[in-house]
Amino acid sequence: MPIKKLYGGIEAGGTKFVCVVAAGPDHIVDEIRFKTTVPAETLGRAIQFFQPFVAQGQIDAIGVGSFGPLDLNPESPTYGFITATPKPDWSNTNVLGTLRQALKVSIALDTDVNAAGLGEHKWGASKGCDPSLYLTIGTGIGGGYIKDGRSLFGMLTPEMGHIRIPHSRELDPFPGSCPFHGDCFEGLASGPAIEQRLGLRGAIVPEDDAFWDLEADYIALALMNYILTLSPKKIILGGGVMQREFLFPKVRRRVRELLNGYVSSKSILENIGTYILPPGLGNQSGSLGAIALAMQLDEKDHDPRL
Amino acid sequence: MPIKKLYGGIEAGGTKFVCVVAAGPDHIVDEIRFKTTVPAETLGRAIQFFQPFVAQGQIDAIGVGSFGPLDLNPESPTYGFITATPKPDWSNTNVLGTLRQALKVSIALDTDVNAAGLGEHKWGASKGCDPSLYLTIGTGIGGGYIKDGRSLFGMLTPEMGHIRIPHSRELDPFPGSCPFHGDCFEGLASGPAIEQRLGLRGAIVPEDDAFWDLEADYIALALMNYILTLSPKKIILGGGVMQREFLFPKVRRRVRELLNGYVSSKSILENIGTYILPPGLGNQSGSLGAIALAMQLDEKDHDPRL
Repeated sequence: MPIKKLYGGIEAGGTKFVCVVAAGPDHIVDEIRFKTTVPAETLGRAIQFFQPFVAQGQIDAIGVGSFGPLDLNPESPTYGFITATPKPDWSNTNVLGTLRQALKVSIALDTDVNAAGLGEHKWGASKGCDPSLYLTIGTGIGGGYIKDGRSLFGMLTPEMGHIRIPHSRELDPFPGSCPFHGDCFEGLASGPAIEQRLGLRGAIVPEDDAFWDLEADYIALALMNYILTLSPKKIILGGGVMQREFLFPKVRRRVRELLNGYVSSKSILENIGTYILPPGLGNQSGSLGAIALAMQLDEKDHDPRL
Repeated sequence: MPIKKLYGGIEAGGTKFVCVVAAGPDHIVDEIRFKTTVPAETLGRAIQFFQPFVAQGQIDAIGVGSFGPLDLNPESPTYGFITATPKPDWSNTNVLGTLRQALKVSIALDTDVNAAGLGEHKWGASKGCDPSLYLTIGTGIGGGYIKDGRSLFGMLTPEMGHIRIPHSRELDPFPGSCPFHGDCFEGLASGPAIEQRLGLRGAIVPEDDAFWDLEADYIALALMNYILTLSPKKIILGGGVMQREFLFPKVRRRVRELLNGYVSSKSILENIGTYILPPGLGNQSGSLGAIALAMQLDEKDHDPRL
């Protein structure tokens, strides 16, 4: 059996870090998970985990999919930093620089949701589909759009969880939970929005509660907008809220109703059951996506972020 | 002076066709405009116009930016056709095949709005900005997103004029004019929507009519969604409705208010006056965009559409 080249991957979440050394989903050599505390301690544990692999020449590239907001503009003086995050102690943390300096290997940094999208595109439910969209609906809502095998970066990283969608105050008087936009998509449909509205975590709201039709409606309205704007060939829905699997058929049905035959693609008209899917990599989209990010460093292209 | 290579361009509109032979905006050799009648006559006139240039070896590539809906999927049996259009006589018209067969040159076909976006990206207001977005707000609403110098094509061509945005029936009881989605963006803010709502063409609604604040609000809500999803570095607003130039400052102000500091880019926070702009090529974005499309045929890349 040929020896596969190994890469490092970090899923840097606001709650926990996952660090892996792997060549892909079927070849995970080592993995560690730990709580996200203060930056020095947390990044220190990640560095400690990778150090032996680096020292033995087993890995020379690490991908990081991180919580944010991140500065991903290569021309910015704070490129590679977590910037103004509400998470205590993490504002203005030089994630990229700290890891590079300690480990002396190539590091690729992207958002957590872009990394997950990349992982799904490489090995998961959107494999072979380009462009594709990965959406996480949980504590926040964010989307990773993968086109030509890369995450989209324009003026900035997209923040598509904050798009505005129709909201009837008669049907749903909840004003929304987003501190910036009130009733944007995230403000209406994220985990915290559900909990603030119902006084109950989404995980324990009964399946037959009429609220879920409203939730599916918001998700479908947002998906409609993404489909019309980005035209992805596959949509992956991850995150805590989408753990409630009964949402999938509701969302699919509503997307088709809302588009009303306007997008004449078989994926919508006939095969929507395989067009809108849960992650193929389960809870490993993020960490394996970080591995996929590291692999891109080897591909020697002109993306200034890499 | 070196002889510049010439290209053909067709702006194939539902009302009129514009055919040009040019090397760019400063080097237009010939141009003809005529009314769009039945396909055989209209395409025949275009062919007649280009024939002498082709016969003399002056052009070997023509770009076409066409009204639609178009089938742009290279794997489809009706690739290059105008498909189910409401325009009489034009349903199932093989535009690409007809031109190719008659002229025996390379033909590149894209949507009218994508061609205009490409023209603006190459020579106009979004020159040097990638990704960029060109939006036309007129009889219909459509967007051309140019990324890596090319128009976005995914599952299909985007149809971003039909996204859903908040609509207060109290403030604006108009139910919307879109036959598919009622009060989608196009259904609320296109030229026909204005005329149906006010009983007056937008071109003659007085500048001080309170309606324009509502119109600017809808446009700003849609732009907010595009910015958060596509993160363009420049947005160009064209089309008949945007001829009312007083809309620009209203739209800019409202976009900044709606985003509420969330997108921390200087383009939004400080320079929105040069971020959202009218077309730099005036009414030539479409025909010159078709020239830009033809030029891409020379660039020998792997886009299966070319």
